[in-house]
Amino acid sequence: MNDFTPSKKTRVKRLHERAHYDRDTLYTVIDAAIMGTVGYIIDDEPYLTPTSMWREGDQLYWHGSSASRMLRTVKTGIPVCVNIFHLDGLVLARSGMHSSINYRSATLFGHAHIVEGKAAKLAALEAFVDHITPGRWPTLRPVMDQELKATTVVAMEIDEASAKIRVGGPSDDEEDYALDIWAGVVPVRTVIDPPVDDDRLKDGVPQPDHLGRISFG
Amino acid sequence: MNDFTPSKKTRVKRLHERAHYDRDTLYTVIDAAIMGTVGYIIDDEPYLTPTSMWREGDQLYWHGSSASRMLRTVKTGIPVCVNIFHLDGLVLARSGMHSSINYRSATLFGHAHIVEGKAAKLAALEAFVDHITPGRWPTLRPVMDQELKATTVVAMEIDEASAKIRVGGPSDDEEDYALDIWAGVVPVRTVIDPPVDDDRLKDGVPQPDHLGRISFG
Repeated sequence: MNDFTPSKKTRVKRLHERAHYDRDTLYTVIDAAIMGTVGYIIDDEPYLTPTSMWREGDQLYWHGSSASRMLRTVKTGIPVCVNIFHLDGLVLARSGMHSSINYRSATLFGHAHIVEGKAAKLAALEAFVDHITPGRWPTLRPVMDQELKATTVVAMEIDEASAKIRVGGPSDDEEDYALDIWAGVVPVRTVIDPPVDDDRLKDGVPQPDHLGRISFG
Repeated sequence: MNDFTPSKKTRVKRLHERAHYDRDTLYTVIDAAIMGTVGYIIDDEPYLTPTSMWREGDQLYWHGSSASRMLRTVKTGIPVCVNIFHLDGLVLARSGMHSSINYRSATLFGHAHIVEGKAAKLAALEAFVDHITPGRWPTLRPVMDQELKATTVVAMEIDEASAKIRVGGPSDDEEDYALDIWAGVVPVRTVIDPPVDDDRLKDGVPQPDHLGRISFG
């Protein structure tokens, strides 16, 4: 499994010390997310669609209604760009110039194709449910054929990619450290709150243990 | 202040009951965010860049190093698409098909231009700092001329836009409500943790009250 080579498209030009091109780092950023933003072109104009995504091997997957404009567009194999982003904190320096944010970001370029065939599609959807809610898939009412038909799943081979990560405190101009200005980091986190039962939950159905395995961000 | 008219680009086709075209709703989604994703085209390929953004009146602003490829590209006035997204919860239905997520999303189309002139640029940067950290700007070391020169600020008139919002629990097939399957919502939140002092903070400088005013998500 080789790492990505910085290309004209993916070489991080600004603050290149924040750049990563190895699959371990990139996949860690991707796998920590349940959402990403898909960018594509229609009639020479850019469109963005946020959607749930998951990775298997070297491919990124997403899905939706077969009627979705985004899916009908990207499944034709046009160039696609995907960004996944985690906000980790505000970096408050002694000057506006050196204030920043801490984050983990992955930008991927590739071409998507449809996942064809009932078995492959079901396997992909199982992987999706398992990514967001590990252990939940076997507890669900099985997928019906007409539901599968109404759903499009696409996979994108990741042709080029880079991750960009910033951690740590501010880096001020040397003379500014003497100023009486507070500086530091305000950490930001995604929190998963306790599950709330559906109003129409059948009497006696408990919250399953697998809800405790939900973890992302 | 008129609302947006659904256009070929912005009319929400799928699940149109989630769509909003009024400025109040749209601006509420935008203003709750400190980050968004900018989509643009270089050599017929889509590129995405996540960046901090803020709104003033009917314009969306973002900024960065004058050397940024994204800024050098979008400042030429090419078509730009911006998405702002908040994840609010996992909607876990009795079937995979009806499982979903709760979210607030805004998608904006327009063309960006450079904010020219020292006063206008400074005012924009003040609005930016005030958006993320209300009350902090007057406490900072003032911006130096060479810093201002090294920074590009762009503003985008919002030509077309739509918001898409999902709230509430799952909506299952009627016969599935009788199943012994747990269903409900797992709420997701962005949390701002207590500030952490910089390692090199000058002795005796307290955490300012304005840190308590940070709020987004």
